[in-house]
Amino acid sequence: MKEKPLILITNDDSVKAPGIRALISYIRPFGRVVVVAPDRPQSGTAHAVTIAHPLRLELVTKETDYEEYSCNGTPADCVKLAFKIVMRRRPDFLFSGINHGTNASINIIYSGTMAAVLEGALAGVPSVGFSLDNYSLKADFGPSAKFVKTIASSVITDGLPNGVCLNVNIPDVPENEIKGIKVCRQAEGTWEEDFDEREDPHGSKYYWMKGVYAMIGNGQDTDQWAVENNYVAVVPVHFDLTANSALEILRNRF
Amino acid sequence: MKEKPLILITNDDSVKAPGIRALISYIRPFGRVVVVAPDRPQSGTAHAVTIAHPLRLELVTKETDYEEYSCNGTPADCVKLAFKIVMRRRPDFLFSGINHGTNASINIIYSGTMAAVLEGALAGVPSVGFSLDNYSLKADFGPSAKFVKTIASSVITDGLPNGVCLNVNIPDVPENEIKGIKVCRQAEGTWEEDFDEREDPHGSKYYWMKGVYAMIGNGQDTDQWAVENNYVAVVPVHFDLTANSALEILRNRF
Repeated sequence: MKEKPLILITNDDSVKAPGIRALISYIRPFGRVVVVAPDRPQSGTAHAVTIAHPLRLELVTKETDYEEYSCNGTPADCVKLAFKIVMRRRPDFLFSGINHGTNASINIIYSGTMAAVLEGALAGVPSVGFSLDNYSLKADFGPSAKFVKTIASSVITDGLPNGVCLNVNIPDVPENEIKGIKVCRQAEGTWEEDFDEREDPHGSKYYWMKGVYAMIGNGQDTDQWAVENNYVAVVPVHFDLTANSALEILRNRF
Repeated sequence: MKEKPLILITNDDSVKAPGIRALISYIRPFGRVVVVAPDRPQSGTAHAVTIAHPLRLELVTKETDYEEYSCNGTPADCVKLAFKIVMRRRPDFLFSGINHGTNASINIIYSGTMAAVLEGALAGVPSVGFSLDNYSLKADFGPSAKFVKTIASSVITDGLPNGVCLNVNIPDVPENEIKGIKVCRQAEGTWEEDFDEREDPHGSKYYWMKGVYAMIGNGQDTDQWAVENNYVAVVPVHFDLTANSALEILRNRF
């Protein structure tokens, strides 16, 4: 009998978030699951790694085929610690999420959920990040189940192209309104940054970051379009940021 | 007479780092310079943004055509605050660095210096990140001067292709050993993660992250090769992580 695959699960909303509890329940039937996730919310940490202070791991649960640790680091730290300290090898698969809030379009750059996924891909581990288009801690992850299982099953059976990971974004609608899975490119978009300016009791100004996402363009082949139109968006992602189209232009300048 | 361009300078090593002081001195002759940089080192913060606590700005210096602020946030925070609060408009150009240490190859993903540059590019501002291949605070930025000025001058005169920013990495050798500027693609590479495991006085384990960069492949058209062979590496960078080559493969699966 073939050995069960070893699967790492992580996220950026913390080990206590409903999204990761849902993901764990959907993925456990597929193999031996190890969870290493942040001990507190780490949204917006992007690909940060912790070098200025030491990292700690706390064993939360240990059962047959299941272990769960919380960590005081970022999602990228969790993945590195999982590989080197907890598992002492690279897992067969990595799943991250389910994030409370979309990571479609340019949000991938700020996302700890997707940083963990890129960290897996960098190490050659087939890796998928799942996000639900609802920031609330009370979001309903039920309709995600079918699609998470379909995509995870496909990746576990057939792997992923070398160096490619997946950014999966799920619309926040009842299951019967989800039209299916759509493979997409990353939408162009931006955040219109804004700040809430306040004054502290000592008369000094301080600023709370807020912002509004603005889509650029309206291609129907993008993840943002797909999620807004009730498709589960799957974007194949790699970590090569080279703008190949600009190479020749710049070679003529320098 | 044409108005001087408005230029934002930032970094991730803090406003006090020798690298940003060198960059400021090289860039000031080109226009009105505003510096908004972290008040303490932020290496490895990647594209983190601060949403869980408020941000503060401190005016450090104000002269004709020159203002300098320190900020308690990340490099991405600094750029957003600079645009919205300090300048109240988007600058004409953004320069980040000079980073103490290389941001070639996969290091771009962890880099606060390059996160600031991507943040600029996302807002449509022609943006360039400079890094020297020497992590020391005592690094010699003198040999960088000529190349930083050449690249900055080119960008100020001719701009950059839409949505493209530059990741510039400079070898740590005397100026007469630098062979010139080479436009490259981002090298494939990875970090071999490792941890220094220790025990605190109370008997609990903790871990310091360390790691060794490992290049994959040896193409002479990459930034890593260029820097190791004494060229100034210029990589055109964009923020689209779509692995286009995998789109068809995945469309046949889902």
